[in-house]
Amino acid sequence: MTQEEKNIGKKSAAEKAVEFVKDRMTVGLGSGSTVFFAIKKLGEQVRGGLNIKTVSTSDTTTQLAQSEGIKLTSIDEAGEIDLTIDGADEVDRSFNGIKGGGGALLFEKIVALSSKKNIWIVDSTKLVDKLGKFPLPVEIIPFGYKRVFKLIEEMNLNPVIRKKNDEFYFTDSGNLIFDLHIGEVRDPEDMDKELKLINGVVETGLFINIADVIISGRNNSTEIINK
Amino acid sequence: MTQEEKNIGKKSAAEKAVEFVKDRMTVGLGSGSTVFFAIKKLGEQVRGGLNIKTVSTSDTTTQLAQSEGIKLTSIDEAGEIDLTIDGADEVDRSFNGIKGGGGALLFEKIVALSSKKNIWIVDSTKLVDKLGKFPLPVEIIPFGYKRVFKLIEEMNLNPVIRKKNDEFYFTDSGNLIFDLHIGEVRDPEDMDKELKLINGVVETGLFINIADVIISGRNNSTEIINK
Repeated sequence: MTQEEKNIGKKSAAEKAVEFVKDRMTVGLGSGSTVFFAIKKLGEQVRGGLNIKTVSTSDTTTQLAQSEGIKLTSIDEAGEIDLTIDGADEVDRSFNGIKGGGGALLFEKIVALSSKKNIWIVDSTKLVDKLGKFPLPVEIIPFGYKRVFKLIEEMNLNPVIRKKNDEFYFTDSGNLIFDLHIGEVRDPEDMDKELKLINGVVETGLFINIADVIISGRNNSTEIINK
Repeated sequence: MTQEEKNIGKKSAAEKAVEFVKDRMTVGLGSGSTVFFAIKKLGEQVRGGLNIKTVSTSDTTTQLAQSEGIKLTSIDEAGEIDLTIDGADEVDRSFNGIKGGGGALLFEKIVALSSKKNIWIVDSTKLVDKLGKFPLPVEIIPFGYKRVFKLIEEMNLNPVIRKKNDEFYFTDSGNLIFDLHIGEVRDPEDMDKELKLINGVVETGLFINIADVIISGRNNSTEIINK
């Protein structure tokens, strides 16, 4: 599938998800190229009179929402979030996923866990039988990162330190990302716990049973998978 | 015991620990009022010709070491650390402890885990039968902290958000500290894991079986407890 074809699928899924947004809701806004289409559509609807408050998961999303005239609030002022729309790098039919390709996994997971309902929007190529072909992002404290890198290497999880323009990539929280080239995650829940327990690991990109609805887009049609 | 009497015990323990430092070692320097005495003593010895490199666990310790003329290196340049000298807020005779009263628990734990040998120096009042009378510090991502606070409240662990001059206290990593008023930690290892697995928790102040030697000072005498 070409990138252009994928983008049509992303847009279809994103616009379908926006149909779930109702007046007066507090809406969590994920990050990434699929959520981009959802925020654009929400912007249209806000300008048409839709009254919502939103909680952002990244600086990039905050800027986009602001440019669309969408009202933002902080997660700790918002209280419980009614609905969060987010993308995923991979998702299986057990509602587990890998997120963090864009680096916003920590705030995305916190927003998701603060939400009554989570809708994930993906183009159909991201719906997989087994997670792990997409490298698993893990957020790491920079102080002493070499020790953590070695530990994860010894677990045979093939970490690669994420870089941007030949320099270390830092998250919005000032941490590093290791991308783990695993190939296949046998037990996502176990792996999530094992990694999270490592001292120096802040969060993993494994989202276990957090999504409630997956909307998969392919061309102009969508598949809605409910839990 | 008065504060002045405690200080004499701290100084005795600290100076005893410095006897373990040998030429050409890489030494981890903890943080806090007991380590203060160790750094002062190391400074004297460095000026007398002792050749060591040190790794600091906090901005405060870095400043003190610099003012003493002690050579500092970053943890990721240092590689393995030969010996770390640190304090503790409470320690039991199973070599478990609570640290983080000074807020440096994250870096202290990472340095400890990177060290071949860990010596803890305390005044004798900190050596306890059961941990938990001292509030357990836990380091928390500020984004969405209210959700984590509520979760820990629901675990009946009585969290209090640490403040300084009426404002939230932030760690050297820009995170919050919750002090958990538990009273008695029944199973320190379980509690450490349970807390570390919470999304939004970066690290806990429970140091499980990390210390190798405890030096407890009382007046001018010390008790050395080897694992």
